[in-house]
Amino acid sequence: MTDFATTEDHLLGGRVVIRQPSQGYRAGSDPVFLAAAVPLRTEGRVLDLGCGVGAAGLCLLSRLPGITVTGLELQPELAGLARANGEANGFGTRFQVVEGCLAKPPALLKGQGFDAIITNPPWYEAGTVSEPSVASKRIGHVERALDLESWLRAAVKMLRPRGHLALVHRADRLGDIMAAVKVLKLGEIQVIPLWPREGRPAIRVVVTARKDVKTPLELTPGLVLHTADGAYTAEAEAVLRHGAALAIARSA
Amino acid sequence: MTDFATTEDHLLGGRVVIRQPSQGYRAGSDPVFLAAAVPLRTEGRVLDLGCGVGAAGLCLLSRLPGITVTGLELQPELAGLARANGEANGFGTRFQVVEGCLAKPPALLKGQGFDAIITNPPWYEAGTVSEPSVASKRIGHVERALDLESWLRAAVKMLRPRGHLALVHRADRLGDIMAAVKVLKLGEIQVIPLWPREGRPAIRVVVTARKDVKTPLELTPGLVLHTADGAYTAEAEAVLRHGAALAIARSA
Repeated sequence: MTDFATTEDHLLGGRVVIRQPSQGYRAGSDPVFLAAAVPLRTEGRVLDLGCGVGAAGLCLLSRLPGITVTGLELQPELAGLARANGEANGFGTRFQVVEGCLAKPPALLKGQGFDAIITNPPWYEAGTVSEPSVASKRIGHVERALDLESWLRAAVKMLRPRGHLALVHRADRLGDIMAAVKVLKLGEIQVIPLWPREGRPAIRVVVTARKDVKTPLELTPGLVLHTADGAYTAEAEAVLRHGAALAIARSA
Repeated sequence: MTDFATTEDHLLGGRVVIRQPSQGYRAGSDPVFLAAAVPLRTEGRVLDLGCGVGAAGLCLLSRLPGITVTGLELQPELAGLARANGEANGFGTRFQVVEGCLAKPPALLKGQGFDAIITNPPWYEAGTVSEPSVASKRIGHVERALDLESWLRAAVKMLRPRGHLALVHRADRLGDIMAAVKVLKLGEIQVIPLWPREGRPAIRVVVTARKDVKTPLELTPGLVLHTADGAYTAEAEAVLRHGAALAIARSA
C-alpha cells in the first residue's frame, strides 16, 4: 500500500487502531486529548483541520455516535493512511478525508458551517526551529502558508455560529492562541493545561472556544499526565484508555 | 487624619501593617501575591501602578532590601493612606507616592526606565458590570481612561529594557492579558494561576513578563489557595505569611 514503513498503534485502549509512518510526524496522546475536549452532546458535522492519519477524528467518532467527521490533510501519504484508517476502524461514510491546504480550502469545505472543528496546528513558528529532515514532520510541525492566527481565522470561517472549536498546542504558544481567539472574537474559552507531572510547567494546552458566544474565559485545572514514577495518572488513563472527557465543559 | 472609617490590617504575618478604608476597594491577598512574583534578585527602582493604599509596594519593600518603590495612585484619599502606611512601616524615603492618572503620567515618572513594574489593573471592562456605589471601589474596579492593553502599554513605556513587569488580575481576563503582552512584544512570560481549591478553575492569574526579551512563555502550576475545609494551604501560607516567592522565575 505505502512505499514507507508504517506501524500500527492502539488508541483509547484499542478501540481505535491507527496505521502511521514509522518516521516523521507521529500521532501520540495529543490527538486523543484533543478529541476528549469536544463536548459529549455534540452532534452533526465535525471538521479536523490537518488531520494527519486521522487519529483525533477517529477517537472522536468512537466517543460520539451522533457525528460525522471530515478531515483536511495537506500531505497525500497521510491523507491516504487516514482514509485507510477510517475503513479499518469500520467508520465507513462517517469519516471522510479531503486532501488540500487550509490556506486555500477545497470548495467542498467552504461555507459548510461545521458544528465543531478540531485542530492540532503546526507546533512552531517558521524560522524559530531547525527544520526536521523528514518531510511529513517538517510539513506538520512548522507553520508555512498560515501562521497560527491565520490558521484559526480560516477555521472560524468554516464554523457555524455557536459552533465549538477545540485545539491542542504547545503550552508556550498560549499567548499566541489567546491573542488569536481575542482577535477572532471567540467566547466561552476554556484553557485546559496538560501538566507533565504535578508541580511542573504545562507541556501542552487544549483550548476550546465558541463562535458568537460571549461567556467569559475559564482557566481550568487541566490534567496531570504522569505520576512521579513516570506512569500515566489515573485521570490521564481515563481519557487516553477509557474515552473520558477532558474537562466538564460549562456548556455541556 | 481621614474623614472616613479605616481599618488596620496585617500582611506578611504582621511584617506589613496597612490602614485602609473600611468600605470600598480593599487590599486583600492579591497585592501580596503580586509582590511575591517579583524575582528576589531585583534591585533598583520599582513602580506600582494604581498602588491604592500601598499594600503591594510595602510587601515588596519588606521582601527586597535592595529596592525603592514609587506608587502612582489616582485617588487622593488612597494616595494619602499609602504615604502614611509607608511612614508607619518605617520605609522612609524608600517609598514614594505620586498622585496622578496613568493615562497622563506625571512628568516625574516619564522616561525613568524603572527596573520593575507591578500593577493590579482595574478588574472589569467598562460596561460589563454594574458600577459599585462606593467611589474608591468604582474607580479602582472598572476600566475608565485606559483599557487593559492601554494600561499595560503605558506601563511598558516606563520600564527599562529587560525590566520586569508583574500583574495580578481576574483569571477570566487571561485572554486580554495575553493579547496585550503579545501586542507589546513582551517575552519570558510566566502565567501563574491562583486556584481557589484543588480541581477548581483559577480565580486569579499573576502574569510576569520582561521587556525586549524573547524567552518563550511558561504556564506554571501556580498555587492552590485553600484546602477543602477552607483554610489556606501550606504553600499559600508560605507566600502570604512568610514572604515566600510565588514561583521560581526562570530568570532568577
